[in-house]
Amino acid sequence: MRAVVFKGPRKLSVDEVDDPRIEQPLDAVIRITTANICGSDLHPYEGRAVLEPGMVLGHENMGVVEEVGPGVDRIKVGDRVSVPFNLACGTCRNCNDGFTSACLRANPHGGAGAGYGYPKMGPYWGGQAELLRVPWADFNLLELPKGTEHESDFTMLSDIFPTGYHGTELAMVSPGKSVAVYGAGPVGLMAAHSALLRGASQVFVVDKEADRLALAGSIGATPVDLAAVDPIEFITDATDGFGVDCGVEAVGYQAHDQHGKEHPELVMDNLVEVVRATGHIGVVGVYVPEDPAAADKGAKTGHVGFNYGLAFEKGISIGSGQTPVKKYNRELRDLIIHGRAKPSFIVSHELGLDEAVDAYKRFDAREEGWTKVLLHPAA
Amino acid sequence: MRAVVFKGPRKLSVDEVDDPRIEQPLDAVIRITTANICGSDLHPYEGRAVLEPGMVLGHENMGVVEEVGPGVDRIKVGDRVSVPFNLACGTCRNCNDGFTSACLRANPHGGAGAGYGYPKMGPYWGGQAELLRVPWADFNLLELPKGTEHESDFTMLSDIFPTGYHGTELAMVSPGKSVAVYGAGPVGLMAAHSALLRGASQVFVVDKEADRLALAGSIGATPVDLAAVDPIEFITDATDGFGVDCGVEAVGYQAHDQHGKEHPELVMDNLVEVVRATGHIGVVGVYVPEDPAAADKGAKTGHVGFNYGLAFEKGISIGSGQTPVKKYNRELRDLIIHGRAKPSFIVSHELGLDEAVDAYKRFDAREEGWTKVLLHPAA
Amino acid sequence: MRAVVFKGPRKLSVDEVDDPRIEQPLDAVIRITTANICGSDLHPYEGRAVLEPGMVLGHENMGVVEEVGPGVDRIKVGDRVSVPFNLACGTCRNCNDGFTSACLRANPHGGAGAGYGYPKMGPYWGGQAELLRVPWADFNLLELPKGTEHESDFTMLSDIFPTGYHGTELAMVSPGKSVAVYGAGPVGLMAAHSALLRGASQVFVVDKEADRLALAGSIGATPVDLAAVDPIEFITDATDGFGVDCGVEAVGYQAHDQHGKEHPELVMDNLVEVVRATGHIGVVGVYVPEDPAAADKGAKTGHVGFNYGLAFEKGISIGSGQTPVKKYNRELRDLIIHGRAKPSFIVSHELGLDEAVDAYKRFDAREEGWTKVLLHPAA
Amino acid sequence: MRAVVFKGPRKLSVDEVDDPRIEQPLDAVIRITTANICGSDLHPYEGRAVLEPGMVLGHENMGVVEEVGPGVDRIKVGDRVSVPFNLACGTCRNCNDGFTSACLRANPHGGAGAGYGYPKMGPYWGGQAELLRVPWADFNLLELPKGTEHESDFTMLSDIFPTGYHGTELAMVSPGKSVAVYGAGPVGLMAAHSALLRGASQVFVVDKEADRLALAGSIGATPVDLAAVDPIEFITDATDGFGVDCGVEAVGYQAHDQHGKEHPELVMDNLVEVVRATGHIGVVGVYVPEDPAAADKGAKTGHVGFNYGLAFEKGISIGSGQTPVKKYNRELRDLIIHGRAKPSFIVSHELGLDEAVDAYKRFDAREEGWTKVLLHPAA
Repeated sequence: MRAVVFKGPRKLSVDEVDDPRIEQPLDAVIRITTANICGSDLHPYEGRAVLEPGMVLGHENMGVVEEVGPGVDRIKVGDRVSVPFNLACGTCRNCNDGFTSACLRANPHGGAGAGYGYPKMGPYWGGQAELLRVPWADFNLLELPKGTEHESDFTMLSDIFPTGYHGTELAMVSPGKSVAVYGAGPVGLMAAHSALLRGASQVFVVDKEADRLALAGSIGATPVDLAAVDPIEFITDATDGFGVDCGVEAVGYQAHDQHGKEHPELVMDNLVEVVRATGHIGVVGVYVPEDPAAADKGAKTGHVGFNYGLAFEKGISIGSGQTPVKKYNRELRDLIIHGRAKPSFIVSHELGLDEAVDAYKRFDAREEGWTKVLLHPAA
Repeated sequence: MRAVVFKGPRKLSVDEVDDPRIEQPLDAVIRITTANICGSDLHPYEGRAVLEPGMVLGHENMGVVEEVGPGVDRIKVGDRVSVPFNLACGTCRNCNDGFTSACLRANPHGGAGAGYGYPKMGPYWGGQAELLRVPWADFNLLELPKGTEHESDFTMLSDIFPTGYHGTELAMVSPGKSVAVYGAGPVGLMAAHSALLRGASQVFVVDKEADRLALAGSIGATPVDLAAVDPIEFITDATDGFGVDCGVEAVGYQAHDQHGKEHPELVMDNLVEVVRATGHIGVVGVYVPEDPAAADKGAKTGHVGFNYGLAFEKGISIGSGQTPVKKYNRELRDLIIHGRAKPSFIVSHELGLDEAVDAYKRFDAREEGWTKVLLHPAA
Repeated sequence: MRAVVFKGPRKLSVDEVDDPRIEQPLDAVIRITTANICGSDLHPYEGRAVLEPGMVLGHENMGVVEEVGPGVDRIKVGDRVSVPFNLACGTCRNCNDGFTSACLRANPHGGAGAGYGYPKMGPYWGGQAELLRVPWADFNLLELPKGTEHESDFTMLSDIFPTGYHGTELAMVSPGKSVAVYGAGPVGLMAAHSALLRGASQVFVVDKEADRLALAGSIGATPVDLAAVDPIEFITDATDGFGVDCGVEAVGYQAHDQHGKEHPELVMDNLVEVVRATGHIGVVGVYVPEDPAAADKGAKTGHVGFNYGLAFEKGISIGSGQTPVKKYNRELRDLIIHGRAKPSFIVSHELGLDEAVDAYKRFDAREEGWTKVLLHPAA
Repeated sequence: MRAVVFKGPRKLSVDEVDDPRIEQPLDAVIRITTANICGSDLHPYEGRAVLEPGMVLGHENMGVVEEVGPGVDRIKVGDRVSVPFNLACGTCRNCNDGFTSACLRANPHGGAGAGYGYPKMGPYWGGQAELLRVPWADFNLLELPKGTEHESDFTMLSDIFPTGYHGTELAMVSPGKSVAVYGAGPVGLMAAHSALLRGASQVFVVDKEADRLALAGSIGATPVDLAAVDPIEFITDATDGFGVDCGVEAVGYQAHDQHGKEHPELVMDNLVEVVRATGHIGVVGVYVPEDPAAADKGAKTGHVGFNYGLAFEKGISIGSGQTPVKKYNRELRDLIIHGRAKPSFIVSHELGLDEAVDAYKRFDAREEGWTKVLLHPAA
């Protein structure tokens, strides 16, 4: 099959590789209809996270079941399915508790949690390819209505929509609450969409890119341009001086100040200011325990010196981490089917596999308007 | 009346001062039967938090109602009552939501939350005295069975028992969970007691003081002497390599390493290691947004550089802040009445008011065996 | 002042009566701007619940503060306020727990819960009048933005919007869930509106009145006309044969079959069929422990023989009872202010006080189009 | 192998039957070390629930893994395991949500939920036998420490301990709450044990059998002998006139009044009286939608006419149904391992398989002292 293969930092090629096949009784093989490029794909691309050459990229995958192993008794050949990016065994303690994001058995490298085509997440090839092997298929796969309807919406169910939604869950967004989302990339926009679905009364989205802020405004959120206003002041004023009930971090450790200097504590410092006493912060922007490339000595070992003293004084809770996709994807799918959610509003490009190498380059360069790229291997 | 009066750092005296009186229609005046000295009383005592001279100390108070204002219609003269340390109006938005710890109206200094005899918590005199004025008495006071029974248990209801309990609530302790409590001072011991009441299967208490560790062992917790073993290794081994489900921080920013050097990030760093992926940390040890005396530059402004990167990777939640006493004190009272809780096990000294100045000195010196001091003004 | 006075079953008059005045230090007197007629006002009107003659009717009230007692320190003269229909002391155990619907102190008749102008809810006059006395004003009153904007929306905050919302809370509606609401009266319509605000993927509203079903359709719910289809079959088919996740009962014990015979178990029987295994039912339609007029012997003493055996087998939970208005009214107000909720869509009539007697007659006769009547005493 | 075989109402025999074997890739076969007789085994025994002759009885099973199918990758031969009575697929929507009690795929008869050796729960043989086939073994089996320690405690993990615990979960028992359990059979006693583990301040157990009440007293609960006192009056007096916060129904539809007449609504009527306004009832005693043998016409079709009118007026919630064992069994196991729970206190008899027929007879006759029978097939 043809696949996007990682050769080294900023070196990708679309190669002919061996077809994946059923290796275990519970495996399925999926023919990919859509695979998205994710912002976190840029971590190995930029060499900031170490990936072994030869790996097929892509963890945001959907498609049609091509073949199933002898132990698969729920999913059938021909089913249209979404593949959660967290690959999970379905029977360990964490999976039992709904934390497929921290599966204890799927990752042979050790550690909690496995995935496709990603550093330290196991040997599993990604889905920016014609075919994808999915272990424990009955547990991992979510059925979709057959056909091609809602393809651009359903493709958000594998990662980015549940990730944004998880931010609002960790931030305890509920009807009538006010919410500040930092970051208007795909995750932040999905968090804003989710906050509105959950009944927030006000949703602020903070960023400095005009095209992304416009997308936030298009769904009914209030864009806050940090190049133009002080976001803490703006949001505090708009909430009668209290600050918001809920904050969502959708930027991560690679936040930059206005001079372009990286400050991993920058967004968290903003959030503990802008969230009111007794409020909640949900962090889905990525932070890491080891980052040799960090500017700051502490940050090299995960020690992000944000204003925790203020968070304590205000009694703010902080929830963190990778989303357990299966906890949310069925309900989000149903919202799409019944016309209540439409996450495809972030799609900027739909390309064939051959265009992937160029797409990575432009996406990595943060070219204007490259918000979300979908790859269609069959196109 | 006679009262413990703050004159300046490490300068207290027991003076004759004016009796408190009904100032507002909703006030009550209480005759104190027991007032405890709290570890946080040492913050102003040591000058680390700035308190104005002339203030009467003491926020852990109980007694008998002496007089009520004309708007008080629930509490009656003669009622035996516990006084929550967080003084709250009962009608603002945060009080409505159960966060009496963040009352928006009681503190004329501004900020969320008020209290008795404490820096930045309003002008309210404390209860290490014969009498205490309690605003919004109907809302703030908890009725106790008349008489003198359980006095040493009930006196823990004003602060320290609900504070320890709040740590276990923030850490989401539930039946069968494993719990690590850092700190075997009164708050840590109350957290351990609370964790067992909530059905924890294993409770570890980490400290280096033998007398306090012995108290932890006396209630069925597992003492972990950090002078003798590596607590992370010990607890990880005792939990099949997973780490605990729940961690409680009961030390605060004044944590010291084995060389006596202050490290505000030390306990949090331990907790993110010792709590398993998907687990929860509850922080009731105090952290502050401003600490001019801090050794570290960041910590002077609340920036505590703990390993948040690891917390994110493990998907650990962090709940923080002062306990809202009223959320818990009724149920904890009932557990005492029915013989299921006995927080008085931490009491080391019961003294008259005249002995308060000496007691502060010894408690501040961390003299062995000075775990918890109760003052009885009538004694 | 002028007020709607109850004289006996189906006997009302608009009379000149004594002005209410400050009786207790915590009282306020409100000048009513809007008071709604509620379906439950028909219980005493029809003589089905016994009310003493001379009572002023009306428990859905809003207005402007005219005067406050000496113990009132939060609410100010001139504040525009909504008055929750459950009158509560703010300091008893149930109020502390957020159950203002079960206040232990406000009702001198005994029993949990008090209200205005209603049988067995205490001696408190209602607000279908120029003025209203509100006890414990600081606790009970919700501030609204000054002026007249959103008057027809805000007036739903005293009862009907929080009541419908409570139905969805008891039924555990959350994003992506499917919901069946039985009854398209004001409560059912508010429940449907609430379910959509909470992110339901599908909301069915079952009734047989065309005008009310049309209102349900107008907000994006799916009307189910039980005169035309079998609602159980219709809803089961529309949910892939599973039935809905959540059911809301917004009819009560006076349900009638197609022959006009009263069957108090009818709606519950439908709901346990139409809600899927592991689902939830929220009951806000009224059931009573004593109903001398009931057709059925059991129902005279509250024994409603619905199919509980099936509810058990399916593992369905049933939450019940009067809404605690204060638990929800602040967030619902904020949704109105920010344009996300618009409960005024149910308003059919806005009348002066003089038209109240006629309005009761027509509303009681279930005349077509008489969905919700607002009275404006100053008009 | 030898097994307890159902031949017809009150006709059992211990027969030689074919060994179960691996039929599907995810199956395991277990060598039973302990299988309990359950009160619900009496339903088919008495002919009240229709079971086909030839079925092997027994759904409370534990043992050691003898063989696994080719798709089993977590559980290993030699593992000591507890077998949850609800047999579940692990991959359907309800299993994903933690409701293994309502698995949508395991029961070929249709309906939600499957089990071993029981009417309408599928074709699966029970474990009162030497061997047991367990489908979807990786998902269903709970690992236990190897050896024989705690055998009599661990054997309660398959059903009765999680069932009693589920009653307290549905009744929302939390620290400091007061609890009334109706029924002192094994389920009621496990509910009382669970309520204490969860931190209840008071636990009342209502029954009329002296031996069972004595067991309730032995763990620290308060026995209430309904042959001697009015339980509603007794409990209301013991809770300051309020009634209990939480009620657990552990009797079911076969409740009898003092004249021996069956009254399916009897216990529910008691509970809605004895639980305070805003309280919660958890029902784990069995109610059924069809009961041809019922005395009452309504009850034949599940229509149990209890005082729901009063439940509504008091705002009481009612949670119902079979326990999802997997939701609780890991934590309960850990409580046993660490010496905090000891459910074996209810064991009255430990017998070999040959004694099963006689044991059923005496257990069915409610002979005094026959509380809980364990069968050891290897004995």
